[in-house]
Amino acid sequence: MSALKTVAIVGAGLVGSGWALVFARAGAAVRVYDADASLRARAPARIRQMLQDMQGAGLIADVEAPLSRITICDTLPEAVGAADYIQESVLERVDVKTAVCTEIDAAMRADAICGSSSSGIPASAFTEGLAKRNRFLVAHPVNPPHLVPLVELVPAPWTDAGILPQLRQAMEGWGQAPIVVNAEIEGFILNRLQGALLNEAWALYEAGLASAKDIDLTVSKGLGLRWAFMGPFETIDLNAPGGIADYSARLAPLYHNIAVSRANPQPWSQKAISSAETERRETLPADKLQERTDWRNRRLMALVAHLRAQPE
Amino acid sequence: MSALKTVAIVGAGLVGSGWALVFARAGAAVRVYDADASLRARAPARIRQMLQDMQGAGLIADVEAPLSRITICDTLPEAVGAADYIQESVLERVDVKTAVCTEIDAAMRADAICGSSSSGIPASAFTEGLAKRNRFLVAHPVNPPHLVPLVELVPAPWTDAGILPQLRQAMEGWGQAPIVVNAEIEGFILNRLQGALLNEAWALYEAGLASAKDIDLTVSKGLGLRWAFMGPFETIDLNAPGGIADYSARLAPLYHNIAVSRANPQPWSQKAISSAETERRETLPADKLQERTDWRNRRLMALVAHLRAQPE
Repeated sequence: MSALKTVAIVGAGLVGSGWALVFARAGAAVRVYDADASLRARAPARIRQMLQDMQGAGLIADVEAPLSRITICDTLPEAVGAADYIQESVLERVDVKTAVCTEIDAAMRADAICGSSSSGIPASAFTEGLAKRNRFLVAHPVNPPHLVPLVELVPAPWTDAGILPQLRQAMEGWGQAPIVVNAEIEGFILNRLQGALLNEAWALYEAGLASAKDIDLTVSKGLGLRWAFMGPFETIDLNAPGGIADYSARLAPLYHNIAVSRANPQPWSQKAISSAETERRETLPADKLQERTDWRNRRLMALVAHLRAQPE
Repeated sequence: MSALKTVAIVGAGLVGSGWALVFARAGAAVRVYDADASLRARAPARIRQMLQDMQGAGLIADVEAPLSRITICDTLPEAVGAADYIQESVLERVDVKTAVCTEIDAAMRADAICGSSSSGIPASAFTEGLAKRNRFLVAHPVNPPHLVPLVELVPAPWTDAGILPQLRQAMEGWGQAPIVVNAEIEGFILNRLQGALLNEAWALYEAGLASAKDIDLTVSKGLGLRWAFMGPFETIDLNAPGGIADYSARLAPLYHNIAVSRANPQPWSQKAISSAETERRETLPADKLQERTDWRNRRLMALVAHLRAQPE
């Protein structure tokens, strides 16, 4: 277990609730605050439901023990004051994050760490003026954090260097898969990789080269099978007899040609988006989106259970 | 079962052997030829081993029945003459493919179809001069085809239009996941999507933003979990309350910024390749590459078995 034993959650929406579950599952004492009293009131039932779904998928043995470690707090200082680690998960807007982090800054211990769930705004945009700004960074999860373990740790220029190895180890102890992003690049790593694939997918779709359904199949019945258990570098390392350098010698020119062919990037066009929207709504009517999202979450849980049972 | 009941394999290396297994598993009569007599002789033992591995992973019940449907032929006309469908899987070189397809063209029935396993060379580059060129196209598998079901069907400009729906249906009957690529674009769809992600991964790595290991984790513990059972368009369709159009309205500007930041694409640099090679060899020494490749294949089999048991 992590040396960070008491964790505060600030912002108890879907992401914050998922985080509360992650920390409580790993044995931490979790103190949850949200400025919205109705969200605070709903959080325990929401977290209970998530835990029950996970139990149903065979991912956890017990619902009550993790729940018993979660305390709902009526004020931010009450949640944050005793915390070794604070996970901020409020609305993705600079003014909102700045206001909340100012409150956290005033209430937190000088040796505590605050990670923001920001998916795109860098920590430097909302922590510059804080007294303890060297204790803040981004800890960007994938939604939902209790099912998809990746967390991007992105320091601001003033973040204490010692926080990165400490929080990396703590996140691993909590069952997450942290990575360190060495500078505040737009989109961090995950959304840049996703974006690169999405941009190519849209360009192919707009050129009429394949249907959205067939482009989806290319990933779900092709590329995605390996990527569920190994990354792109390991994939190519095992795809040539001599490893990654051998693979690169053979195929780097092809991939460079592909990049050059997209050197004049266009925004996703409204025409292509409308067309894909029509194609998707024929496959999945708008009133079935929630049902299909529930299916996705069940599939994710089953996949996580499968992956856990496999030898690394 | 497909109306294409007799299938010929021309080229019995790793890819051709995997194809033989695909067709035999689905009940087709399979006639295998390779110009190399030693490869012909080794093919049955190799296919038996693949079938036994699949049986071990719970993917097939019986090894002997599919094996009994495979006949090794000593000449190309003997394999091809009676075939409804021919899968060509010889070396990826225009001169080699041209020579072999000329032989196939002479021996095949006028109503047969020949799909090439070409991963990059378009059918128009090696079938233009053939008498039955309208019966040829690319049917590009992922390696190994008996574990990763995606097949890219890429017609030449002269391919009979009726072949696409017919072969698509047949491939589905054989248990594969065919897609149609509407024109001969470099890299087809799969390698273009993989290339877009690889190009971004290399650029991030070369800029020192993350280690190769952390970039790999971003996919294997993040993006890849969803992509093992749904494609990029369905992923974003379920990532905003209003579906794909709603998601695009929110995030297309971010992704366009990412594309613009890569509008001056550089080749994968030798320095970055050497550095990644060093990092990979520290994780996996060169003499363990084969062992890890065997691990990958076992993981793929287990993943395929898991995915098959899930509700679509």
